[in-house]
Amino acid sequence: MSEKDDLKAKLVPAALGATGPRIVIVGGGFGGLHAAKALGSAPASVTLIDRTNHHLFQPLLYQVATAALSPEDIAAPLRNVLASHANTEVLMATVTGVDIAGRRVLLGDQAIPYDYLVLATGSHYNYFGHEEWEQFAPNLKSVGDAISVRRDILQAFETAEMESNPDVIRALLTFVIVGAGPTGVEMAGAIAELAHKALPGEFRRIDPRSTRILLLEAAPRILATFPDSLAAKAQEELKRMGVEVRLNATVESVDSDGVCVGGDQIRSRTVIWAAGVLASPAGAWLSAETDRVGRVKVEGDLSVPGHPEIFVIGDSAYLEQNGKPLPGLAPVAIQQGEYVAALLRSRLKSAPAPKPFRYFDKGNLATVGRAYALFDWGVVCVSGFIAWVLWLVVHIYFLIGYRNRLVVIFQWCWAYFTAQRGGRLIDPGD
Amino acid sequence: MSEKDDLKAKLVPAALGATGPRIVIVGGGFGGLHAAKALGSAPASVTLIDRTNHHLFQPLLYQVATAALSPEDIAAPLRNVLASHANTEVLMATVTGVDIAGRRVLLGDQAIPYDYLVLATGSHYNYFGHEEWEQFAPNLKSVGDAISVRRDILQAFETAEMESNPDVIRALLTFVIVGAGPTGVEMAGAIAELAHKALPGEFRRIDPRSTRILLLEAAPRILATFPDSLAAKAQEELKRMGVEVRLNATVESVDSDGVCVGGDQIRSRTVIWAAGVLASPAGAWLSAETDRVGRVKVEGDLSVPGHPEIFVIGDSAYLEQNGKPLPGLAPVAIQQGEYVAALLRSRLKSAPAPKPFRYFDKGNLATVGRAYALFDWGVVCVSGFIAWVLWLVVHIYFLIGYRNRLVVIFQWCWAYFTAQRGGRLIDPGD
Repeated sequence: MSEKDDLKAKLVPAALGATGPRIVIVGGGFGGLHAAKALGSAPASVTLIDRTNHHLFQPLLYQVATAALSPEDIAAPLRNVLASHANTEVLMATVTGVDIAGRRVLLGDQAIPYDYLVLATGSHYNYFGHEEWEQFAPNLKSVGDAISVRRDILQAFETAEMESNPDVIRALLTFVIVGAGPTGVEMAGAIAELAHKALPGEFRRIDPRSTRILLLEAAPRILATFPDSLAAKAQEELKRMGVEVRLNATVESVDSDGVCVGGDQIRSRTVIWAAGVLASPAGAWLSAETDRVGRVKVEGDLSVPGHPEIFVIGDSAYLEQNGKPLPGLAPVAIQQGEYVAALLRSRLKSAPAPKPFRYFDKGNLATVGRAYALFDWGVVCVSGFIAWVLWLVVHIYFLIGYRNRLVVIFQWCWAYFTAQRGGRLIDPGD
Repeated sequence: MSEKDDLKAKLVPAALGATGPRIVIVGGGFGGLHAAKALGSAPASVTLIDRTNHHLFQPLLYQVATAALSPEDIAAPLRNVLASHANTEVLMATVTGVDIAGRRVLLGDQAIPYDYLVLATGSHYNYFGHEEWEQFAPNLKSVGDAISVRRDILQAFETAEMESNPDVIRALLTFVIVGAGPTGVEMAGAIAELAHKALPGEFRRIDPRSTRILLLEAAPRILATFPDSLAAKAQEELKRMGVEVRLNATVESVDSDGVCVGGDQIRSRTVIWAAGVLASPAGAWLSAETDRVGRVKVEGDLSVPGHPEIFVIGDSAYLEQNGKPLPGLAPVAIQQGEYVAALLRSRLKSAPAPKPFRYFDKGNLATVGRAYALFDWGVVCVSGFIAWVLWLVVHIYFLIGYRNRLVVIFQWCWAYFTAQRGGRLIDPGD
C-alpha cells in the first residue's frame, strides 16, 4: 500500500460512548490481552485488534496437534473475555501498517486513530531463509496449523494401513521433529504416546508401536533454556519413551520425501518444524531498530526510542536484563502487558512514571510426556512427577475462561486414566 | 474409471489373521456402525470403510455450526469404537464403485473383495437442480461443513462491527435458513439464541439483538413429519424466540446478495441450506432401481433385488411400511443395521432367515431452542420442557463414547446456566 493509499484509508467509526485518550493494542496473545485486562477501568478508550476472534493458549497447541485437546478448549473469544470492560472494544482485523506521523493503525482500506499504541504482535517460526521448506515441514502457531498437523499425523497411520509397499509404510510411520526446544520436545513426546499407547490394537496390518520418532537439534544439547542437568534428564526420558534424539544435527534440506541431515537422508512423510523464532513485522511497520530476528529494541519502559507513545511487548520486543535478552515466554509477555498498562494509567493521571520494566522470573517449566516434566527455579531444579503436577496446575491457572479450565481438566483426567485421545478427527472435506 | 481400469485395481492386502466369509460395510454412519457393532463376534471377517476416520453424530452437527459444541465432542474414531472386535477392521478410503460380477468394492486403484456387501452410504442435501446455489447456501453434512458455517455466522457479526454502511450491516445481520424440517428449525432456534442471548454486551457499534433470522419453508407448514398440533406449537415458540417463519415460500434464486423468494429479494450474507435430501450414489454403483431422490428400492430383507448378497440400509434405501416410505432418520438406520447383522449371522450358520424388516417407531423428537422440544409418540404428543429433557437424554444415550457423553453433558449444563457458547472459534488461517 502506498502512502497516498494510506491517506485515503477510511477511519473506522468510533465505538458508541467512547471517551478519553485512545489506546490501541495490536495482538490478543498473552501480552496484548493482559495489557487490555489491566486497562479495564482506565479513563481511556481501549481498542484491541487481532487477526482472529480469540486468544489462543499457544503453550497447549501441541496437544491439539496430537489429538489430546480440541481447539475450542484452548481458545477464548476476545470479546467475551473483555465484555465486562465498558471502555474496551475488540476488532477482528488484519493490521497492515502504522502511520506514525498521523498516529493511525492501518487495516487495509480502513484506519484507527490512536493516542497510545501497544504492539504485541508475537512471532513466527524461522526457516532460516528456506521458506520453501514450510510446505513440507509445517509449524504450530495458529489453530489452523494445529488442525492441519493433526490431520497429517493421523492420516499417516490411515494411509499406512492401506499400503502394501514396506518402504512406503516405513516412511509413513517415521515422524521427524526439527528443533528440540520445549515445543519440539513436547511434540515428540506426545507423538510417541499417541503411537505407542493410544493407537496399538486399532490397526490390523501395521503396528503403530513400530513408529519411529526423530527429534533433530542443531545444538549440542536439547532444551537450551534449561540447565544441563535437567536437559539430560529430559533426554533420558525421551529415550525411554522411544524418541530418537539427534544432536548437532543441522537440517540440510526438506522435501516431500523427508529431511536430509548430516548427509543422511531420512525418509519421512511427516516433518514438523519447531526451530527458531522470527519476530512479527512490528519493526518494519515502525522502521525501528531490531535485532537479527526482527525484535524491536525497546527502552527500559518498553517504549520505542523517540516515540514515548508507542510500546512493543512480548515476542516482538528486544530488551536485555542482567546482560541477557529476555526470552520469548508467556510470563515475560504477561508481565510486560501489565507493566505498560500500569505505565499508561500513571500517564493518564499525570502521576510519576513507574521504574523501568524488570522481569520477575517465577521459574521455567517444560513437559516431556505423561507424568514427566521439568521445573527450573534457579537454585532448585525438579524433574518427574512433581514437576508435572506443577506444570498441570500452572497451565490450568493461566488458561483463559472457567469453561476451558474445566473441560481441559476433564480431558486430561480422561487421558491419564485411559491413555485415549479425545480429538482424533480427520475431516478430508467433501 | 473404465471397466479395464477396474480389472487392474490392486487388491488391498487382507488383514492379519482374517478368516471366514468377508463382509464389507461401506459407511460409518448410524446404519453402518451399528451393523459392524452387531457383527463383532460373527464367524466372518468384517471390513468397515468410510471416507473419514470417524462416526459423526449428525443430529448434533447444528450445535457445532452454532458454536455450542466442538466437532470432537460429536465424533468418535471408528477404529477406536470397533477396536475390541478382533474380526473387524476399519479402512479410511473413498469408494468409487462396486464390481458386482467380481464381488469387489472399488477404491480408486485399489479393490476389496467381498462375499456380503452392506451399503450404508447416507444422503446429502438436494438443491433441486440448482447446484450453483451451494456456494452461497452451504449445508450441514460433515464436520468441515459445520466449521465453515460456524465461521460464516461468527464472521458476519465481526464484519458488521467494522462496517459503517447501514445497508451492509443489515445484510450481515440477516440470516436465512432454507427448509423447516428438524435441522432448519434447530438451526434457526440456535442462531436466535446466539444472537439474542450469547452475543449482546460484547459489541460496541452493532446490537446483535437486532439480528433478523428468517426460516423459509416451501410447504404450507413446518416440520412435515410431525403432527399439525406440535408443528403449530413449534412455530409459536420460534416466533417467541424472534425467528420469522415464512410458509409457502419457494426459493427462486440464491446468490452472494441473498435469496429471492416469492418475488421478494431478501438481502443476506449468510444463507444456510436445510431443504430436501438426495441419496448417495449407491443406486448408480449397483445400476439398481431407485426412487426419485436416488434411494435404492430394496426387498423386505433390505437386500437388492436379484442380489441376495448386497444390502442397502439407512438414508440410501427405499422401503415402504404400512404404505408409506420409511423416513431418513437415525433410528431407522440403526434398526436396519442391526437387522442386516442378524440376517447375516443366520446365513453364516445356515439358520432360517429372520422375518422381513419392520421399523419399530419409538417416537419422533425435535428441539426448537433452549428448554423447548417436541415429542411425537403416536397417541401421545408432548411439547416444551419435558420433551426437551427427553431429547437431551436420548441424544446423550445415542452419542458414541463415554468421553463424548460426559463432555457434551458438561457443555450443555454450562450453556444452560450461563447462556454462553463454548465453541466461538474463527480461524482465518495464515
